[in-house]
Amino acid sequence: MSKILAYGVREDEQSAMQRWASQHPEVQVDTTDVLLTPENATLAQGYDVVNILQAGIPVGESTLGQLDQMGIHTLTLRNVGTDDLDFDVLKKYQFNVSNVPRYSPNAIAEHAMIQMARLFRHFKQMDLKVYRHNLKWAPTIGREVRKQTIGIIGTGNIGRVAIQIAQGFGAKVIAYDKYRNAEIEAQGLYVDSLDELYAQADGISLHVPGLPENHHMIDAKAIAKMKDQVVIVNAGRGNLVDTDAIIAGLDAGKIDGFGMDTYEDEGGLFNVDWEGKDFPDTRVADLITRDNVIVSPHTAFYTWTATEEMVEQSLDAGLAFITGNTPEQAINY
Amino acid sequence: MSKILAYGVREDEQSAMQRWASQHPEVQVDTTDVLLTPENATLAQGYDVVNILQAGIPVGESTLGQLDQMGIHTLTLRNVGTDDLDFDVLKKYQFNVSNVPRYSPNAIAEHAMIQMARLFRHFKQMDLKVYRHNLKWAPTIGREVRKQTIGIIGTGNIGRVAIQIAQGFGAKVIAYDKYRNAEIEAQGLYVDSLDELYAQADGISLHVPGLPENHHMIDAKAIAKMKDQVVIVNAGRGNLVDTDAIIAGLDAGKIDGFGMDTYEDEGGLFNVDWEGKDFPDTRVADLITRDNVIVSPHTAFYTWTATEEMVEQSLDAGLAFITGNTPEQAINY
Repeated sequence: MSKILAYGVREDEQSAMQRWASQHPEVQVDTTDVLLTPENATLAQGYDVVNILQAGIPVGESTLGQLDQMGIHTLTLRNVGTDDLDFDVLKKYQFNVSNVPRYSPNAIAEHAMIQMARLFRHFKQMDLKVYRHNLKWAPTIGREVRKQTIGIIGTGNIGRVAIQIAQGFGAKVIAYDKYRNAEIEAQGLYVDSLDELYAQADGISLHVPGLPENHHMIDAKAIAKMKDQVVIVNAGRGNLVDTDAIIAGLDAGKIDGFGMDTYEDEGGLFNVDWEGKDFPDTRVADLITRDNVIVSPHTAFYTWTATEEMVEQSLDAGLAFITGNTPEQAINY
Repeated sequence: MSKILAYGVREDEQSAMQRWASQHPEVQVDTTDVLLTPENATLAQGYDVVNILQAGIPVGESTLGQLDQMGIHTLTLRNVGTDDLDFDVLKKYQFNVSNVPRYSPNAIAEHAMIQMARLFRHFKQMDLKVYRHNLKWAPTIGREVRKQTIGIIGTGNIGRVAIQIAQGFGAKVIAYDKYRNAEIEAQGLYVDSLDELYAQADGISLHVPGLPENHHMIDAKAIAKMKDQVVIVNAGRGNLVDTDAIIAGLDAGKIDGFGMDTYEDEGGLFNVDWEGKDFPDTRVADLITRDNVIVSPHTAFYTWTATEEMVEQSLDAGLAFITGNTPEQAINY
């Protein structure tokens, strides 16, 4: 019987793991809550597939060499990001690798649009007042979402769902993407340049990949082109945004709200409980305290639906590799 | 020249007041931030119209008698609620009275749906964790809005906008109203009874008037008929909900989230800054601290658009009365 070991499995992933296992009696699926590290690699002895979720821990020679020694050459990720992986080493040992490039786009699109709506409406300011027992309305007045022009950068699966949600609110939507989608084109939503989008949008949401060409696309120069009181939400990739430029824009009153689900230096910071400990990032600590900034630790994806889809697809991919097939989630590297 | 005195004017209402005044040079509009009380009634000496916003302060004999003495018999409200008014006394002095029964339905519908979405996604729990520097994902996993069945009770102007927003998220919408709307009927969204709605809805939002027949419609009996893990939002009227029954439902884990913008005992409590003072309502104090309850002090209406519409309509109504006409906002009592 083929055997898959899943590392770093959270409580909320267990039901999906068990359901998949019960549907695939030909495979034994075991789980552990420890992460795949050089120290924990030996746990995989006797398994055919190692299944992980990217956790900011490098997966290189010291880990992969051990897996190779144990005869394991299949690594399946339960998420999309592969920043942890050393592909040179994976190549050296001829690993089969897969990720989950597409799962519930709604998880992330909903997050981005809910946070943008909260920022327009100044709900964090009101939340904080209410916690302090200040139930005064003024001056915490909000802007109606339907009266705003919302600019969606990137019209892939996630950006397109964000557009539907914004349209449900009755907002005017404009969009920009180098690669145009026919449906969005037919709706006439595209502007011709980012500059045009910056000039018109009251709110901007980022849904492009974190490719080098997009690194710090939201920098001081871009922000200067935006409307005063702009609201920016990044539930895409941390490196899309120059965080210092955002802070300067917040300090200057140029930016009225910022939703940060991803962060350029999030590795080792997010998905860790720092309560009662020294918080290692003063920039994020500052952002958290601001009443017009909503920080979440890369949890836009974190829904039951998305989790199920990530678990299922990663196990499907593992099974495909086991049976000598190439799953659609295979990474060609 | 006719003269209108507006009491209790907030900073955020001033621009709309001034714009209206500049468009109506035949009327003098003066504003004060003090409220209409028996002590402040004399400020209206020499005016033709008194314009107020309901503020939880009774407007009865001691105030209206003074206005009558000064020859003032027109009272225009900038909001919809008339609970403060003693209509017997208004009748005795033959007052013309108006309110603003319809203004931006989006203000309230957006609030209700944003808060419901936050509750489904467990965003308050995550907000509170982030404030404490706990950036761990688990166990704060959320439900996607698109996977939920959202039940809208009341399909008037506000309920119908709420339906559009929920549909933008991709949620399944069901609705109930004694008085059916043709458009919602055509969409096939109505269920035949509240019981049916309670049995099917993952989230319930209230958009019916606070009539006696609707008093405590959400009580222990109604909650018992709802699905486990139901999310309830009340941005309608405080008396629609039996708050003790909600608290019992939260304590039992039956209710997964509650959004409270209106409260049955909100008079004298909301729109007051209690920071550093003894907070007078232990029930609300408790609700505020819960990580699955979002309290806001009747601010769902509080947007620039709604505020402008309320100011403009109340001044239009005053001008109509001045010129011997009956505005559409006139109250027949």
